[in-house]
Amino acid sequence: MKENNYCVIMAGGVGSRFWPFSRNSRPKQFLDFFGTGKSLLQVTVDRFRPLVPIENVLIVTNVIYRDLILEQIPDLKPDQILCEPARRNTAPCIAYSVAHIKGRVLAKMKTANASIDWESDAMNANIIVAPSDHLILDEQEFLHVVEQGFDFIEKNDVLLTLGMKPTRPETGYGYIQVKTAQGETMENNNVYPVKTFTEKPNLDLAKVFLESGEFLWNSGIFMWNLRTIRRAFRDYLPEIADKFLPGEPVMGTADEEAFIQEMFPSCPNVSIDYGIMEKAKDVRVIPASFGWSDLGTWGALYELSEKDANQNVTIHCDSAFYESKGNIVTLPKGKLAVIQGLENMIVAENDDVLLICQKASEQQIRQFVNDASVQFNGKYN
Amino acid sequence: MKENNYCVIMAGGVGSRFWPFSRNSRPKQFLDFFGTGKSLLQVTVDRFRPLVPIENVLIVTNVIYRDLILEQIPDLKPDQILCEPARRNTAPCIAYSVAHIKGRVLAKMKTANASIDWESDAMNANIIVAPSDHLILDEQEFLHVVEQGFDFIEKNDVLLTLGMKPTRPETGYGYIQVKTAQGETMENNNVYPVKTFTEKPNLDLAKVFLESGEFLWNSGIFMWNLRTIRRAFRDYLPEIADKFLPGEPVMGTADEEAFIQEMFPSCPNVSIDYGIMEKAKDVRVIPASFGWSDLGTWGALYELSEKDANQNVTIHCDSAFYESKGNIVTLPKGKLAVIQGLENMIVAENDDVLLICQKASEQQIRQFVNDASVQFNGKYN
Repeated sequence: MKENNYCVIMAGGVGSRFWPFSRNSRPKQFLDFFGTGKSLLQVTVDRFRPLVPIENVLIVTNVIYRDLILEQIPDLKPDQILCEPARRNTAPCIAYSVAHIKGRVLAKMKTANASIDWESDAMNANIIVAPSDHLILDEQEFLHVVEQGFDFIEKNDVLLTLGMKPTRPETGYGYIQVKTAQGETMENNNVYPVKTFTEKPNLDLAKVFLESGEFLWNSGIFMWNLRTIRRAFRDYLPEIADKFLPGEPVMGTADEEAFIQEMFPSCPNVSIDYGIMEKAKDVRVIPASFGWSDLGTWGALYELSEKDANQNVTIHCDSAFYESKGNIVTLPKGKLAVIQGLENMIVAENDDVLLICQKASEQQIRQFVNDASVQFNGKYN
Repeated sequence: MKENNYCVIMAGGVGSRFWPFSRNSRPKQFLDFFGTGKSLLQVTVDRFRPLVPIENVLIVTNVIYRDLILEQIPDLKPDQILCEPARRNTAPCIAYSVAHIKGRVLAKMKTANASIDWESDAMNANIIVAPSDHLILDEQEFLHVVEQGFDFIEKNDVLLTLGMKPTRPETGYGYIQVKTAQGETMENNNVYPVKTFTEKPNLDLAKVFLESGEFLWNSGIFMWNLRTIRRAFRDYLPEIADKFLPGEPVMGTADEEAFIQEMFPSCPNVSIDYGIMEKAKDVRVIPASFGWSDLGTWGALYELSEKDANQNVTIHCDSAFYESKGNIVTLPKGKLAVIQGLENMIVAENDDVLLICQKASEQQIRQFVNDASVQFNGKYN
């Protein structure tokens, strides 16, 4: 475990697609999705413990979740929670974490009374950026890949991402096309240059991607060293880099919060994929297979969950099914669902809302949330 | 309002067909089905207030519901709750109420220092027996019919029942065939002799019954005077009459409960319909139409409830429907149901159980209750 390994966990999302299971007050990353006793965020933090010192784990989130995070991860200090005063997509989120890490490295150097050379290797850090609400089934393989990635970014000034070997023509993910030498077959756990990032494809295109063997799912997990990502922001998103630069010296001090409060809301809303990854030249990808899912939808959760003989999934609660198949049912623990004559539906209850919806119509859920908010004056938000 | 009018309300049922809305601890009659702020039992008691002095209202039930009843009807005295130590169908239940009323009349005579002639008119009482969990929409018409019934049974030693003018070929009710003179048309609110009682018919037979104009639904509401029902028990159910006879003098005293505890469980399990009404000679019926339903099933409740434009019924909770029709949905007050892609289903939640079931399969609910009781060791009873 290297002292200059850092981990940035993005935990600001609201996750309305899992409504009513996830709510504004408790989005997906704070929920114990699989009844393991740990929230997705807790599992995510634990996943990095073997590779990143706990004091180098940073969580970027909205201020309203700060207390919840400190409650769920009691060994984090308050200054490890970076609070965004507004939602501005992943580029400003990551820029904040980069500035914060730069500030920490600088503070360490000061403490060590070393002479400060801002561009020296001693000022560097190796950073992994990951979402807080994804599922990874093979933790050992994940650690193996990430360790390899840390080694690579320490030695190479490139932007690295982890690409998931696709197992189905999924239309819910972005894809990464890999550049291989002629006749070369793409192998897991090697490092390849990225040819292109693509948006979510339609089904026909997704099938072509899958069959070609050249495409990987974009996991949203990025690795880079501090020097390289700072340079990338300066090169591709100078309007963001310029805002954070003057704040680097106050990071980790009492002035950090005021600086961010003042400046952050004026950042443009732009994703790291669009703002940097798709434009940068030295982007690399490690193809990997560690049972990854972004848990983006009820359907994804259904696919990943254990099923009974009639392909019904039950999460948390007790259940009894009659003449029913292909359903995903989740009520709070300690409740019983008795279900007859239901097929391919989502049945999800949390607090004061029960949702019953066809799995195939889960894209409408966001609409339901909006409608309910208007119709019932926010009572069930 | 006559001082010797009595009302016996049968409130011992468990009502598992409305599970999980009704539970062992709170059967149907104790629930506020329509969100009016009153339970079915409260509405039933209130219904009789204009015709029966409140001190003459008796509720026969299981001892476990005594406190709940006193809580729901605070102007009842504890000795107006007749507690059955075991469930023995309607004949023993009614026999108990008859003995109790006889005891009360006797006690009154004693207080009045009158000489006691057990067979005198002064020892008589007019009694209506009614279930605690039925719906009556037209209360005024109901009162009118019952008042007429009280007049009739005071003057005539017959067993009278109220027969509901059928409005559809219902297979869930028993029927009463009325004896009319040749060429005579059956009129509401007249008194007719009964030709036969019939069991629940199949659909074809129910259609014949409806078209014939000779058949009425058996409402389970009976009227008779004390003398006549005592004689009927002696004539048709002497094994029950003999058990209660020695208890009449202790009714209303401290010894009543011990007597009933000791004797009641040995009563045979027999209904008043089978044991007396179907066998007695002088049985009469008043055809009536006062918007009656036994609320026996979710389907019956659905039929009676207000529907939205897509024929969805919502009871108690908030709801939002999408691409859904013909459902009946009830969650506790203060909850929201968001329902998409569902047709002709029951969605009912109460405490820790959620039931989702096709309306057409509601006959299976009893089975679900039994299965769940076994599978989850009574946790959700």
